[in-house]
Amino acid sequence: MPYGAEPFMTDAVSSPYDDIRRLITTMPGPDEAAVEAVRLRERQLTKPAGSLGRLEWLSEWLAAWQGKPNPTADRPLVCVFAASHGVTARGVSAYPSEVNRQMLENFAAGGAAINQICASLGLGFKVFDLAIDMPTHDITEREAMDEKSCVATMAFGMEAIAGGTDLLAVGEMGIGNTTIAAAIYTALYGGPAGHWVGRGTGVDDEGLARKVATVEAAIERHKDHLKDPLEILSRLGGREIAAIVGAILAARMQRIPVVLDGYVATAAAAILHAIHPSTIDHCIAGHLSAEGAHQDVLARLGKIPLLALGMRLGEGSGAALAVGIVKSAAAVHRDMATFGQAGVSERLS
Amino acid sequence: MPYGAEPFMTDAVSSPYDDIRRLITTMPGPDEAAVEAVRLRERQLTKPAGSLGRLEWLSEWLAAWQGKPNPTADRPLVCVFAASHGVTARGVSAYPSEVNRQMLENFAAGGAAINQICASLGLGFKVFDLAIDMPTHDITEREAMDEKSCVATMAFGMEAIAGGTDLLAVGEMGIGNTTIAAAIYTALYGGPAGHWVGRGTGVDDEGLARKVATVEAAIERHKDHLKDPLEILSRLGGREIAAIVGAILAARMQRIPVVLDGYVATAAAAILHAIHPSTIDHCIAGHLSAEGAHQDVLARLGKIPLLALGMRLGEGSGAALAVGIVKSAAAVHRDMATFGQAGVSERLS
Repeated sequence: MPYGAEPFMTDAVSSPYDDIRRLITTMPGPDEAAVEAVRLRERQLTKPAGSLGRLEWLSEWLAAWQGKPNPTADRPLVCVFAASHGVTARGVSAYPSEVNRQMLENFAAGGAAINQICASLGLGFKVFDLAIDMPTHDITEREAMDEKSCVATMAFGMEAIAGGTDLLAVGEMGIGNTTIAAAIYTALYGGPAGHWVGRGTGVDDEGLARKVATVEAAIERHKDHLKDPLEILSRLGGREIAAIVGAILAARMQRIPVVLDGYVATAAAAILHAIHPSTIDHCIAGHLSAEGAHQDVLARLGKIPLLALGMRLGEGSGAALAVGIVKSAAAVHRDMATFGQAGVSERLS
Repeated sequence: MPYGAEPFMTDAVSSPYDDIRRLITTMPGPDEAAVEAVRLRERQLTKPAGSLGRLEWLSEWLAAWQGKPNPTADRPLVCVFAASHGVTARGVSAYPSEVNRQMLENFAAGGAAINQICASLGLGFKVFDLAIDMPTHDITEREAMDEKSCVATMAFGMEAIAGGTDLLAVGEMGIGNTTIAAAIYTALYGGPAGHWVGRGTGVDDEGLARKVATVEAAIERHKDHLKDPLEILSRLGGREIAAIVGAILAARMQRIPVVLDGYVATAAAAILHAIHPSTIDHCIAGHLSAEGAHQDVLARLGKIPLLALGMRLGEGSGAALAVGIVKSAAAVHRDMATFGQAGVSERLS
């Protein structure tokens, strides 16, 4: 880790998480020279300085984490990680668990919302099936998965970028996983479970009460094992969140900037942030979810969302729309004429 | 006008504006049957109801104003209206007026920011030269243009949609035109000129003081002629704002929804809104400009901006990015599978 403090380390002599912790200590930092090159060019483009607001910042961010003075968004990729959750037995979702397998088929057939968004914006799209027919354990009864399984899922998530991309968006699908994310936030940040629990796909008041009770029961069950963020991850789940942790880390190592989707995907970033805040410096928040507590989470992560469209679907849908903005930002930075090229007069003073 | 009150009418027996006022009385309203058809389909698509937030609302908005149950954004068009302003003699801009002609050439050569945004999102793009080598009069001395010229410019703006489009974004370019827009807002809404004046392309403190003094002088000069919104338009200018008024009206008549750009383009919508609020029901605010008073203006118009990216360039740049979101919304609504088609289970209750 080229800057900042040491990441969270346990007292254990050896742990399945040691490889992950070691990886975090070798992550590259931002390429300040590339950022300077972007700023130099920005000042020469035919527009008033600063007039493109966050578009200009996005070009700098791409350059910082791609490590190149001419940042690109030519091969953007949206990855959706799909998993099943034993906690659905507690009645925490308005939809049955069989929807998981059906939605995988819907993604493959091109019928889901994320398929249309990716098609309309020219984005690559991949779905990762994280053993969707084998739910993780009910977290009110025992840990979602053991440590080795958690590490293996993170490693699987690292494969997201194997086909090559210069900009990664991470999303998820899994009935019951807003309950899982709420449990993670409660474990990380404390406070009453009710603060972190929302209506997800749209549960009624009784369903909401069951979600709060479920998170409270899970926290009570695991309360003596919630200090290490990676242990929070394996105990509370789920596999899609573990895989996104892996994808975020792999992207950092390969110098690929990351756009986070909403309430559930952000839980993966929150786990990493709790290990060390710098682990997610290469990530931006694609959008602000309509799931109420997302705003609080993003504030804790220091992320200002690019979009705020009242969306709460998951599937990477908000992140994919944000990638469309990033693509335009990269095109503007790369292809605009300079004052000299266009023969446009510069400022009077 | 199928709903609401009568538009603003003057006591004059005959006025060059009569045709415009008559046109406004014949504007079509929203197609409620098309909106109902969209809502019916939305409920059948493979996602929780309401989970796409403003994307769902955008599909309803397109249907309402296109008057068709299957709304489209297949031929979106960004129109930029360019004009020159005599008020630049007052030192209200950080850039010289010669930039107007140079930027027209930059648009034609494909070197401006808006060219790249349109290319990255697949949007049509047209520029309208509103006699850019003949500035309007200095509004601190006399009216920007006479009434006949104002009406002719509105009529010219109506040609924006002549080539065909199903979604129109309106933007502008003209050194000095944030001063013109601030003068219009001061005339429409009152209050101190300093509340409505911002830094535009980036004037320093002295330039800002000159802008405030210029708006104050213009309001003082024309104070006895600022009751009729169309007279505000001809007296304070400018041609790009008059042309956008025309484009907005023509789009309404032809059932083409409109995306407004930022601080200056919104002044055209504000003129129409002052004639009658329903005249801009087919318009959305593409983005919130970094020009400070834009938020106040949008609140008065009852418009919630789709994007807020700190942009203040003009050229239709914010509106064009917003059109990208609308395109995705239309694609999602049109191409998603229904629960029945995909074999996905619906809600448990």
